[in-house]
Amino acid sequence: MHKVYDKLYYSAEMNEVFSDASALTCMLRFEAALAQAQADHRLIPRSSADVIVACCSAELVNLELLAEQSALAVNPAIPLVKQLTLIVKERDVEAAKYVHFGATSQDVMDTGLVLQINQALRLIDHDLQLVQNNLVELIEKHRHTVMAGRTLLTQARPITFGFKAAAWLDPLLRSRNRLKEICSNTLAIQFGGAVGTLASMNSKGLEVLMLMAKELGLQAPSFTWHTARDRIADVAAALGVLVGNLGKMAKDITLLMQTEAAEVFESAAEGKGGSSTLPHKRNPISSTMITAIAMRLPALVSSIMTAMMQEHERAVGAWHAEWGSLTEICKLTGGALKQSVNLTTDLEVDAERMRENMEMTGGLIFAENVSLALTEKIGKEAAHELLEEACNHVKASGGQLKEILLQDPRVMEHLNSKTLENLFDFAASLGLSNLLIDRVLASA
Amino acid sequence: MHKVYDKLYYSAEMNEVFSDASALTCMLRFEAALAQAQADHRLIPRSSADVIVACCSAELVNLELLAEQSALAVNPAIPLVKQLTLIVKERDVEAAKYVHFGATSQDVMDTGLVLQINQALRLIDHDLQLVQNNLVELIEKHRHTVMAGRTLLTQARPITFGFKAAAWLDPLLRSRNRLKEICSNTLAIQFGGAVGTLASMNSKGLEVLMLMAKELGLQAPSFTWHTARDRIADVAAALGVLVGNLGKMAKDITLLMQTEAAEVFESAAEGKGGSSTLPHKRNPISSTMITAIAMRLPALVSSIMTAMMQEHERAVGAWHAEWGSLTEICKLTGGALKQSVNLTTDLEVDAERMRENMEMTGGLIFAENVSLALTEKIGKEAAHELLEEACNHVKASGGQLKEILLQDPRVMEHLNSKTLENLFDFAASLGLSNLLIDRVLASA
Amino acid sequence: MHKVYDKLYYSAEMNEVFSDASALTCMLRFEAALAQAQADHRLIPRSSADVIVACCSAELVNLELLAEQSALAVNPAIPLVKQLTLIVKERDVEAAKYVHFGATSQDVMDTGLVLQINQALRLIDHDLQLVQNNLVELIEKHRHTVMAGRTLLTQARPITFGFKAAAWLDPLLRSRNRLKEICSNTLAIQFGGAVGTLASMNSKGLEVLMLMAKELGLQAPSFTWHTARDRIADVAAALGVLVGNLGKMAKDITLLMQTEAAEVFESAAEGKGGSSTLPHKRNPISSTMITAIAMRLPALVSSIMTAMMQEHERAVGAWHAEWGSLTEICKLTGGALKQSVNLTTDLEVDAERMRENMEMTGGLIFAENVSLALTEKIGKEAAHELLEEACNHVKASGGQLKEILLQDPRVMEHLNSKTLENLFDFAASLGLSNLLIDRVLASA
Amino acid sequence: MHKVYDKLYYSAEMNEVFSDASALTCMLRFEAALAQAQADHRLIPRSSADVIVACCSAELVNLELLAEQSALAVNPAIPLVKQLTLIVKERDVEAAKYVHFGATSQDVMDTGLVLQINQALRLIDHDLQLVQNNLVELIEKHRHTVMAGRTLLTQARPITFGFKAAAWLDPLLRSRNRLKEICSNTLAIQFGGAVGTLASMNSKGLEVLMLMAKELGLQAPSFTWHTARDRIADVAAALGVLVGNLGKMAKDITLLMQTEAAEVFESAAEGKGGSSTLPHKRNPISSTMITAIAMRLPALVSSIMTAMMQEHERAVGAWHAEWGSLTEICKLTGGALKQSVNLTTDLEVDAERMRENMEMTGGLIFAENVSLALTEKIGKEAAHELLEEACNHVKASGGQLKEILLQDPRVMEHLNSKTLENLFDFAASLGLSNLLIDRVLASA
Repeated sequence: MHKVYDKLYYSAEMNEVFSDASALTCMLRFEAALAQAQADHRLIPRSSADVIVACCSAELVNLELLAEQSALAVNPAIPLVKQLTLIVKERDVEAAKYVHFGATSQDVMDTGLVLQINQALRLIDHDLQLVQNNLVELIEKHRHTVMAGRTLLTQARPITFGFKAAAWLDPLLRSRNRLKEICSNTLAIQFGGAVGTLASMNSKGLEVLMLMAKELGLQAPSFTWHTARDRIADVAAALGVLVGNLGKMAKDITLLMQTEAAEVFESAAEGKGGSSTLPHKRNPISSTMITAIAMRLPALVSSIMTAMMQEHERAVGAWHAEWGSLTEICKLTGGALKQSVNLTTDLEVDAERMRENMEMTGGLIFAENVSLALTEKIGKEAAHELLEEACNHVKASGGQLKEILLQDPRVMEHLNSKTLENLFDFAASLGLSNLLIDRVLASA
Repeated sequence: MHKVYDKLYYSAEMNEVFSDASALTCMLRFEAALAQAQADHRLIPRSSADVIVACCSAELVNLELLAEQSALAVNPAIPLVKQLTLIVKERDVEAAKYVHFGATSQDVMDTGLVLQINQALRLIDHDLQLVQNNLVELIEKHRHTVMAGRTLLTQARPITFGFKAAAWLDPLLRSRNRLKEICSNTLAIQFGGAVGTLASMNSKGLEVLMLMAKELGLQAPSFTWHTARDRIADVAAALGVLVGNLGKMAKDITLLMQTEAAEVFESAAEGKGGSSTLPHKRNPISSTMITAIAMRLPALVSSIMTAMMQEHERAVGAWHAEWGSLTEICKLTGGALKQSVNLTTDLEVDAERMRENMEMTGGLIFAENVSLALTEKIGKEAAHELLEEACNHVKASGGQLKEILLQDPRVMEHLNSKTLENLFDFAASLGLSNLLIDRVLASA
Repeated sequence: MHKVYDKLYYSAEMNEVFSDASALTCMLRFEAALAQAQADHRLIPRSSADVIVACCSAELVNLELLAEQSALAVNPAIPLVKQLTLIVKERDVEAAKYVHFGATSQDVMDTGLVLQINQALRLIDHDLQLVQNNLVELIEKHRHTVMAGRTLLTQARPITFGFKAAAWLDPLLRSRNRLKEICSNTLAIQFGGAVGTLASMNSKGLEVLMLMAKELGLQAPSFTWHTARDRIADVAAALGVLVGNLGKMAKDITLLMQTEAAEVFESAAEGKGGSSTLPHKRNPISSTMITAIAMRLPALVSSIMTAMMQEHERAVGAWHAEWGSLTEICKLTGGALKQSVNLTTDLEVDAERMRENMEMTGGLIFAENVSLALTEKIGKEAAHELLEEACNHVKASGGQLKEILLQDPRVMEHLNSKTLENLFDFAASLGLSNLLIDRVLASA
Repeated sequence: MHKVYDKLYYSAEMNEVFSDASALTCMLRFEAALAQAQADHRLIPRSSADVIVACCSAELVNLELLAEQSALAVNPAIPLVKQLTLIVKERDVEAAKYVHFGATSQDVMDTGLVLQINQALRLIDHDLQLVQNNLVELIEKHRHTVMAGRTLLTQARPITFGFKAAAWLDPLLRSRNRLKEICSNTLAIQFGGAVGTLASMNSKGLEVLMLMAKELGLQAPSFTWHTARDRIADVAAALGVLVGNLGKMAKDITLLMQTEAAEVFESAAEGKGGSSTLPHKRNPISSTMITAIAMRLPALVSSIMTAMMQEHERAVGAWHAEWGSLTEICKLTGGALKQSVNLTTDLEVDAERMRENMEMTGGLIFAENVSLALTEKIGKEAAHELLEEACNHVKASGGQLKEILLQDPRVMEHLNSKTLENLFDFAASLGLSNLLIDRVLASA
């Protein structure tokens, strides 16, 4: 991806997690932890381990050379280990013997990637907290701001903006929990050697693995997962679901910003949302990019799942396909979250316009209220038909539903005018929205 | 999908869960539970509830008519409720007033779908147990059956077939846990009324919801999830991951059945795996279809995730897109599992051929053993280079690696011939494979 | 897919093309054409060919048995050939020798599928003509019906509804051409024998192939395409693009049907677009299902492309993955087209409301007109800034842009009031829309 | 994507086409062509156009600033035009008035993208020619190199390596034609102004468009395609199909490089295909990365198709989703092609091993030959059964098929030993492979 799009799709923080420097650092953390754990278990000399650890610094790596050599090695770990060995050798010939001892390229790369994912998930959790804070504030503030609930894009019956924002928050809480769970249970170290049997070490291999996992803050897996890629797929899927949840929120806001709705607006800023030709424009910005990202992510997730059929003890292509897709998934998620923080900060809500929009249909938005009230008397079906007739009358004539009903004896024999008046009251039309909001706030 | 492919892609049991009859039954279970719970909370008369419950039978529904009317209603719930109301009315005019009272079409359809998913997950768990049993048996039996571990499709170093089967089982155990978790936490009833506020009932709406959830064996959600589709996406993703795990196993078996490998075979049966032209053929059958299904599933999952951006309080299209994709995901998963049970039952393992295949390279498969042994003396890099040279010699000349090494003083100054002999021993080349196998069996 | 969704996703006509009976018939047409061509080239006796041809009838096939046996054969062609051979044998033992002579299962299945695709494309072309007719009518009728052009969902500057409909038609014309091209160049017979070398016949194999292609109305390929699946992928992609084009039209209409826009409506019908709870509703129906289908198709196309990496001379899984996905692609395309015919038939256009919607912003929709007029005097940038300021004033105060500009000396020193008046004229704001419409109609 | 993966997934040449500098240059070419054409039609002063053209240089643009501002504008065209205007203004205040006159952001961005695609397709065509040359050479050289044809991964009957290479080339020729067609018919200039009506210019707008198209070497479209994205989707799909074709070739080679097959190898080079642990390894490199890319592309294509439902006259998100996916599609295709050139250069073919592999089954690979010969005597079914029995005997006993048949009177009553001998001849088993090869070479 080039710079011209960088600020649109991504966040600086997440890009940093997936920078070259960070990728190298994470791979080198594996090598350092390996040497250390092997020294702890007296598999290699402590003095050698110390030198190796000291050399595990991304700054010492020649990136250009590494990139060049990775093309012949079909992964960057092989040239990285080669460079590290040389760097160590310059300081201590004996120590160089023990670089990457007992590990295979995929051990380095998978663990490096998992460490990057771990950082990514922490960043995501942090930004999710900010979005959550913003939404909680919006919910509290607009708990009583009445607006049209809309189904299949047409007005259905009243809700509040607080209720709508709670509907955005609720699934985000689930996504956040799922990601925490993944941090705790799914992100495991990879360490198996050439074919996963830890064959290159004596019986202490498993203890080395345990120690490394602890040192790196990762799970110790029961079994090598070189070609069991459900962990990676689980991460991809959870991020796909998270971004889908954010996309739903963004989509709603783009709709509410329509000229004809004009109920909610992204916060204003100098030069934000303008057009190169149209001087009156105020375009959605953050919500546009979140929906763009939410359109791209599912396909990337599918390419991770497609790559799960990995051959034997190391795949030929499927593993190599993961790197690009997973990096992009994490980076785009970072971008979507950053834009979501922006989007939910200082969101402008036009309560007056919300009310006006509901009033533009002559009271149709209260039709279900009357229908429900009549149901108790004449049954759901008859009530529905009666109201349908009245609503069609309103649509054709442009009058007010209440007036038409007042003149309909089939209605008024069951309802008095006071009752009818109450059925056309916004505040009385909100059902359990406050109770439901409280339930979401309680889980937040 | 037509019958000509039915037995290839699907299982009869899962097709049953997603049959028309089952879809109707599950929707009607919602309507029955609704009436019952409303009667319990004195929102509708008990006698009416009893009639409604009695009429909630798929057999009473005119399916052709329902299909016809659903085209005008853009979902099948509306005509279903209409038919149910008529059926009830014929028995009890009063009761007909309370059919579907306070619910919306999406409540019926979502809950119906979740009930179907619930059944699907039970079926999957059952079949996963069978696959697990088969794999545990294979692991125990072939714990010491040595074969080539292969990376990037070429021989790397020895493993056992038990180790390979454990690598298949390990991710399936995780998938099984994830699906159980989804059953317990994700599968929630949908009940919110037109816009999710439970506006059509008095304050007892939430209690009705709780009671219905209990009756239907589903979670009671904090908040309406009409347009928060992470629950559906989570199901789709978990099944995608499961099938990816099965696909990896199947892919391995297709490779092991190759004429040139010939190490493992699907069980033989009259007429199974033949060709219309080639009389000598024994084609992979179950593994072929599992890989076929595993290629299809990721895209279907992505279409569920793509549909997550659902507008406002009910989507216009995105919700409607889910039905076909999710049904297909569940049905294909059912098929993949059934084929996996077949695949792992009576799998034929040719231990002799496994050994012969490893011997065809003149001992190259032991190269890492020697390299590791030399590493302690001369360091990893020097050892690797020495062995690489010797291996190239073997490849060019066709000799035996051991013989070449025995004649190389650079090697023999560090190793005596006894030690070298040991390095060319299969049993001594398996690292911690047994220990790792035990860890998987312990979680099984 | 079950019946409850049938009318929503599919069309009866296309379902017929992909019915079991049709699949069998198309495969049997291959067998008949093969026997005939072989008799013409004296490879088999004419009398035998005649019996074979006579037996190639789907009605004679036991479908249940075929489905059962296909599970062991991993494709339905093997049991079909077996049944056909028995049927022929009962009539003529000699003729039974020559059934399926020289062909392989994939020859039958691929050619059968191509024949089904051919029928599907004809049906699609037919329905596209109907959509085209409807759109041409709408374009002509609404060439001067002014409405808001909208960018990023907010009002930009005026267009006409005819212009919008022309924008829908233009890409459909390209899709139609592409599909015709595919019919002529891409749909080729498959006939290669076991590994594609036509090894089972003497040198006349190629001539037999030519004759069969002619008989079946298909291309004669240069080379066997058993594992070169670009032809299938091209079909899938072209249908994906077509449905994407239809989806764009449908999406626009769902937006125009919003309560707040209310400019365009799907034709009304008894029971169409109602709600189970809301008596005033008029929901989008056809456009809802078209967008639903357009969300599902891209993923299905990707699964066809994913299946292109087919091993050697016949794939193990990837070929088997195509059947379900391609069938679904064709069937969903059929449904999208049928719904598109419905959607464009008797579409209701509310010209008055279109004008009202443009007037709700105090003339902002004319802002670019003034900006362009001023550009000639003071440059694009200065003009843009001046107007931006005035527009913000309108948005804040709620006044009319024209009035504000009339009072701004920085504007009026360059424009007189007559000129300004003209800049706020709808008819003068439409640019070359008529000319562009004519270009589209000319290609139609 | 970071540098550590750059050489694996991409090519330097294609990355250059999609570099920031190239993106800016292509957008500026639009602005220059616009000014020039407007001057030719006397819409703006020639002298102003000259200054604008002179300033349209990517080197003058402050990329950091542009990236920063694009985040507020939700596309990079707006800040680019702003910068260009300032640059022009510094030289000529009058000329600055006419920068970007009558165009909208999407005109610049779409046309810029199409110009990049045009360059990409030329590069692809060039590399395809190289692959084609390599394959033609391989086909000629190995026209008579006999190897096993394999179906469902098991040996079926003999082909030649030339035949296999021709099967790789054939679909590539079709892809190449399709891409040429896209260059000629699909790549159109975008120029419509704010809502596509060319409203900002007088009647000369269309002539300006024609002139610009000619100048830029692109098609002049009938109609604005701001939200008709089939052109973009067609490009994506054609590249998806091309890469699928390359993936099939690569997949075959990874399989042929298996230790147990060992028939074909990627060219050797110092440091190529080694392992970090296994000294004897020769891993597939180019074919690994091509399969990796071929696994990623279909999903990216689907995300372009998913983005086709673009709202009204400019999309909110769907357009913005295209940029990242399409860039990645082109870049990955560039990488796949570069690796394909490498892969097909100096491919090593082991004809002897090919023959040995066929001989390992005791003659089963000739089973169909005998079956076909017997078919003329006893019919296809009886012949098939007879051979099946004999083949099972070989598999069980390990003998030679020919010997077993010689002892079977049911066979020998129809065939004499001379005939039987001929049926076990490789050269006589190749059917029309040479004739088919010639057909492919003729189209090349």
